[in-house]
Amino acid sequence: MSIVAVGAVAYDTIETPHGTVSGALGGSLSYFALGARFFGPVSIVAAVGEDFREEDRQLFVDRGIDTRALVPRPGKTFHWHGRYHEDMNIRDSVATELGVFGDFMPELLPDQRRADFVFLANISPQLQEHVLSQVFSPRIVAADTIKFWIENDLAGFVRLMPRIDILTVNDEEARLLTGEHNLVRAGRAILKMGARIALIKRGEYGVLQFSPDSMFAVPAWPLEEVVDPTGAGDAFAAGVMGWLVRSGGMNESILRTAVIYGSVMGSFVVERFSIERLLALTWEDIERRYRAFIELTDSHYSRWMSQ
Amino acid sequence: MSIVAVGAVAYDTIETPHGTVSGALGGSLSYFALGARFFGPVSIVAAVGEDFREEDRQLFVDRGIDTRALVPRPGKTFHWHGRYHEDMNIRDSVATELGVFGDFMPELLPDQRRADFVFLANISPQLQEHVLSQVFSPRIVAADTIKFWIENDLAGFVRLMPRIDILTVNDEEARLLTGEHNLVRAGRAILKMGARIALIKRGEYGVLQFSPDSMFAVPAWPLEEVVDPTGAGDAFAAGVMGWLVRSGGMNESILRTAVIYGSVMGSFVVERFSIERLLALTWEDIERRYRAFIELTDSHYSRWMSQ
Repeated sequence: MSIVAVGAVAYDTIETPHGTVSGALGGSLSYFALGARFFGPVSIVAAVGEDFREEDRQLFVDRGIDTRALVPRPGKTFHWHGRYHEDMNIRDSVATELGVFGDFMPELLPDQRRADFVFLANISPQLQEHVLSQVFSPRIVAADTIKFWIENDLAGFVRLMPRIDILTVNDEEARLLTGEHNLVRAGRAILKMGARIALIKRGEYGVLQFSPDSMFAVPAWPLEEVVDPTGAGDAFAAGVMGWLVRSGGMNESILRTAVIYGSVMGSFVVERFSIERLLALTWEDIERRYRAFIELTDSHYSRWMSQ
Repeated sequence: MSIVAVGAVAYDTIETPHGTVSGALGGSLSYFALGARFFGPVSIVAAVGEDFREEDRQLFVDRGIDTRALVPRPGKTFHWHGRYHEDMNIRDSVATELGVFGDFMPELLPDQRRADFVFLANISPQLQEHVLSQVFSPRIVAADTIKFWIENDLAGFVRLMPRIDILTVNDEEARLLTGEHNLVRAGRAILKMGARIALIKRGEYGVLQFSPDSMFAVPAWPLEEVVDPTGAGDAFAAGVMGWLVRSGGMNESILRTAVIYGSVMGSFVVERFSIERLLALTWEDIERRYRAFIELTDSHYSRWMSQ
């Protein structure tokens, strides 16, 4: 089983209180793929411009990521410039230049159309829908979006929602999408809009998971230092989808474990700038922090200790 | 085993976006005692003024709370006037009139001096120390404080810390007390200051527990509506100390369960104004929400379901 994912591959300029990087490989899909590849095969769908560096394609290839549908096109690679405030929960998008994504409507390869797991990383709802429509009968579809698309193509995203099994949004996006300030109500409203599961990301405060007859709340891994929050949400989705792929399906128990793997992946990404931490990561690192995460959150501590 | 607790018994004026109450029985000790009494015997130490209503003393007595050391004194009962913002995480103290607490230095009764469990609810560090010094050999001492005392008698509170087993403070207070913005560092700094365990309360985001070789993170019970946040921290302490009294001691496992009972008690208090929800509460309500809380936070969901 494998994941087909669509989203942005970008060159980022990122400013945080810890420094600035520019020309850094980024975009929602890069973070997702570099995280999810630890769990299972990932095939990515995106456009890149003439300025896209061969070494960056190789970086994906070297990690087993299928780049056959990483399409070179005339023009420039997606560029994002973000600036985080002293309180890194707040950021400004200084620039967002879609570049070659402006009218990108790719055709999936025959084997990609048979994918069981589909992840629609943050990109225009139109492109997300275009990709999803080509997959014959996906078992699990997860999607992310951002404030920009909720404000600029709400209709497009709302149309997509009944086809989404798992929606991952942050608290601000959940409120904007549903019009509900309270997150319990926002989570339930997302289910009414058609998604089967809502995962509301609260940054340093963790995640709330809503399914039709259950709620799961998990804190975030407590970090002493956050260097760059970029990509945390995409790496979270990578851990979630990754664990579902590994498990070959989804039930409440698998989903809760998946949310913890997602939280673990998100906690790594923010430790360094851009995708640096993902590149240095090993499966052993992931497993070690997963076990520490269980120890951190398990209310049946003695039971856990004796296992 | 029983708890001796010192703190404020007050008449409150509380303004929240949901309305205003005035002349409401409140104060840190009232919330604590009305919560902890569900778990075991509670004996309270406080001063009240000539305006203190007999019915309010009776309200404690009717619930099995020992009021022999609730001392009537000439003057007025402690008065607090709080105003919550639209974002109820923020509040202003419009007025704080200590009244009869100005120079209250009580003598504990002989049986109170033999207490195993001592809770020092928010009141001046001097009074907290005065009470603690009279207890012969307490097994567990927990204490709370607020920004006001950290700013006005830091030395007094710091002197107390090596005698505290469990310090409960909110995130803002933890930062102010330690000078560390990051809560992981703040938690560790509290342990270095002498407390054995630090419980950092994060309101709607839950609690972080720090012990010398372990950390425990728990989310808050997700509420659809918060009517009045007053007393949530004191009710939290009530659940924590209450469960420790019930368990007759403390280890990591008991403490984690205690923190969940604390979170449960805190979640009830904020559902209505003042102490109203505590007065209407039953042990069955507490147990039901405790079980729901475990279901909400347990990462081993299927294991839990099959028990």
